Amino acid sequence: MQQPAHGGNLAWAAALAGCPRDAILDFSASISPLGPPDSAIAAIQSQIGSLRHYPEPEYSELRLALSHFHQLPPEWILPGNGSAELLTLVGRELAELSATILLTPAFGDYYRTLTAYNAKVLEFPINLGQGDKETRRQSEVFLPHTPQPLPPRSLTKQQGLLLNNPHNPTGKMFSRSEILPLLEEFALVVVDEAFMDFVPPEAEQSLISVVQEHKNLVVLRSLTKFYSLPGLRLGYAIAHPDRLSRWQTWRDPWPVNNLAAAAAIAVIGDQNFQQQTWQWLPPTRNQLFQGLAAIAGLQPHTSAANFLLVTSQKSSLQLQQQLLQDHQILIRDCLSFKELGDRFFRVAVRSVSDNQRLLTALQALLNN
Amino acid sequence: MQQPAHGGNLAWAAALAGCPRDAILDFSASISPLGPPDSAIAAIQSQIGSLRHYPEPEYSELRLALSHFHQLPPEWILPGNGSAELLTLVGRELAELSATILLTPAFGDYYRTLTAYNAKVLEFPINLGQGDKETRRQSEVFLPHTPQPLPPRSLTKQQGLLLNNPHNPTGKMFSRSEILPLLEEFALVVVDEAFMDFVPPEAEQSLISVVQEHKNLVVLRSLTKFYSLPGLRLGYAIAHPDRLSRWQTWRDPWPVNNLAAAAAIAVIGDQNFQQQTWQWLPPTRNQLFQGLAAIAGLQPHTSAANFLLVTSQKSSLQLQQQLLQDHQILIRDCLSFKELGDRFFRVAVRSVSDNQRLLTALQALLNN
Repeated sequence: MQQPAHGGNLAWAAALAGCPRDAILDFSASISPLGPPDSAIAAIQSQIGSLRHYPEPEYSELRLALSHFHQLPPEWILPGNGSAELLTLVGRELAELSATILLTPAFGDYYRTLTAYNAKVLEFPINLGQGDKETRRQSEVFLPHTPQPLPPRSLTKQQGLLLNNPHNPTGKMFSRSEILPLLEEFALVVVDEAFMDFVPPEAEQSLISVVQEHKNLVVLRSLTKFYSLPGLRLGYAIAHPDRLSRWQTWRDPWPVNNLAAAAAIAVIGDQNFQQQTWQWLPPTRNQLFQGLAAIAGLQPHTSAANFLLVTSQKSSLQLQQQLLQDHQILIRDCLSFKELGDRFFRVAVRSVSDNQRLLTALQALLNN
Repeated sequence: MQQPAHGGNLAWAAALAGCPRDAILDFSASISPLGPPDSAIAAIQSQIGSLRHYPEPEYSELRLALSHFHQLPPEWILPGNGSAELLTLVGRELAELSATILLTPAFGDYYRTLTAYNAKVLEFPINLGQGDKETRRQSEVFLPHTPQPLPPRSLTKQQGLLLNNPHNPTGKMFSRSEILPLLEEFALVVVDEAFMDFVPPEAEQSLISVVQEHKNLVVLRSLTKFYSLPGLRLGYAIAHPDRLSRWQTWRDPWPVNNLAAAAAIAVIGDQNFQQQTWQWLPPTRNQLFQGLAAIAGLQPHTSAANFLLVTSQKSSLQLQQQLLQDHQILIRDCLSFKELGDRFFRVAVRSVSDNQRLLTALQALLNN
């Protein structure tokens, strides 16, 4: 069976582990272990009777709820069938520019969507170690945490930039002030904030608060990672209404199913669940980080998100296979990130006890 | 509020009628009144726990179930987020050809998807009255039920044809033998069979049985009309595996949500529901047809599908408003079909008692 290009492929994992899918402890998909919240399940249950009706094409209630949540007019918000659907529209938009700059390693679907529309891709490697700000010259503009300066503005003003923040798979978070100058450099800046909601409000660096000031900014958000609903599909784009209206002509009229729309309205109002997540993540991530760092041959990277990238002296593909076969644990190999390859893997932060199962299994494998 | 371009917009209707959405009797969306089947609801309920997992990107179980249902290899089937999502991929495919021929009046989303990719559209009006086969010359090739001959083959062999069968909004069904010669004429023939499952097996004219013999044939199917699940979104395309693989690079990896995938597997195996539908439709449609024909100023058109197109001497927009305001009944105006305009409307076939409510209301309005 082919190695999957994305995390969360339980059918593949269960076949390799020789167990039912439910028995797999999945660290490969970066999904919160706390959800789905009860509010989501209740909303879904209450709307099963509505499945006999088409979704309302304007998604007015959903847009209004998101509008209150982000304090933005509803016409600046476009719901999608997962942020993955919206990323395809982004690819088409970026392909109209002379080139798109990607920070690498980059999420595989960025390449997929850019290639689908024959966009030209320019890769900028992110610095995986300590920053090298000392060596930079004052006069040059850099992407956050890259050693290379940007092309001259005469070029970038016809180019796009596709960035995720926090960055997947490294977990690095770029500050708002690092990204803001880039809006002056590029024709279009797309910031995929699929993991930003995991960052507690006092630390988050979302660009949503400035989107109305920048016609060339698009922010993508997901609701399925924080609220553990990837099987339901729901994300949204925030951008200038003219751009979003154009996107609507590029896709069908009913991309979001009724249950996803109802669940979304429920979860964004679920402050208890949000607080619970922000209380759980930082200490639990720190504990997992410390546990991984204490294992010989492993070095986790600092992360602002709900996952950790880990450098491994041993082949991560071998580790992945052994963890599956001996422990029914699935980790995310990094083969689909071509700059990383076999000496890196990624794990989601799960509950304290799940994380301990992973640490115990890794200790057993790496001390042999 | 703007007149909606599609049926089933209950938010718009409820605002106009001044009642809750649930109170609207919806004849505008061509959805079966018999569903959703219990098998679908049970499947959805049983999979709510799976929402914490990503859909399996190959949708292997769903494809296998559809493969058994249609007796085709699974790689010839691609599930989508409603057939509407797949129609967007069709638009991109057709735009690569020199032009696409549409039978008009045509479903509005055909224009949307073709325009989205700058495809050239050639319109062929369908004959709304009796056929005019007598006047045709033997040497010319015609589209089914159109008075005009096709362009010469030197042109059509670089062109596409997008057709629905049964045809929406007229309800006409083209026979397999009428469509088969067109496969020799065109570079690509897309047959949208969104309503074909309503036709009982002994009468259906699907091209699925010949798809493996024609690399230039695409069949689109919907599961949401027959099984009353438009809010869940599920359709599929049947075409050569090479074409479907290409389409997968044009869209995101997880377009179908887990609940839709589970419901689809359940409903295609639900032979009781299928039988029940085929027993209900023909006599109920006939009764509604007779009832409409008996009202002065209305003339229904013969239909193979679960809806009837009706020619009206009175403005259909006025009828629509009066039915909403006085009777909380929603019919589908035909303004979005530019060839039809204000002297046509479309109604779904519903239960005998619902249909009677419509007939009584129309009688009251048209006898005044």
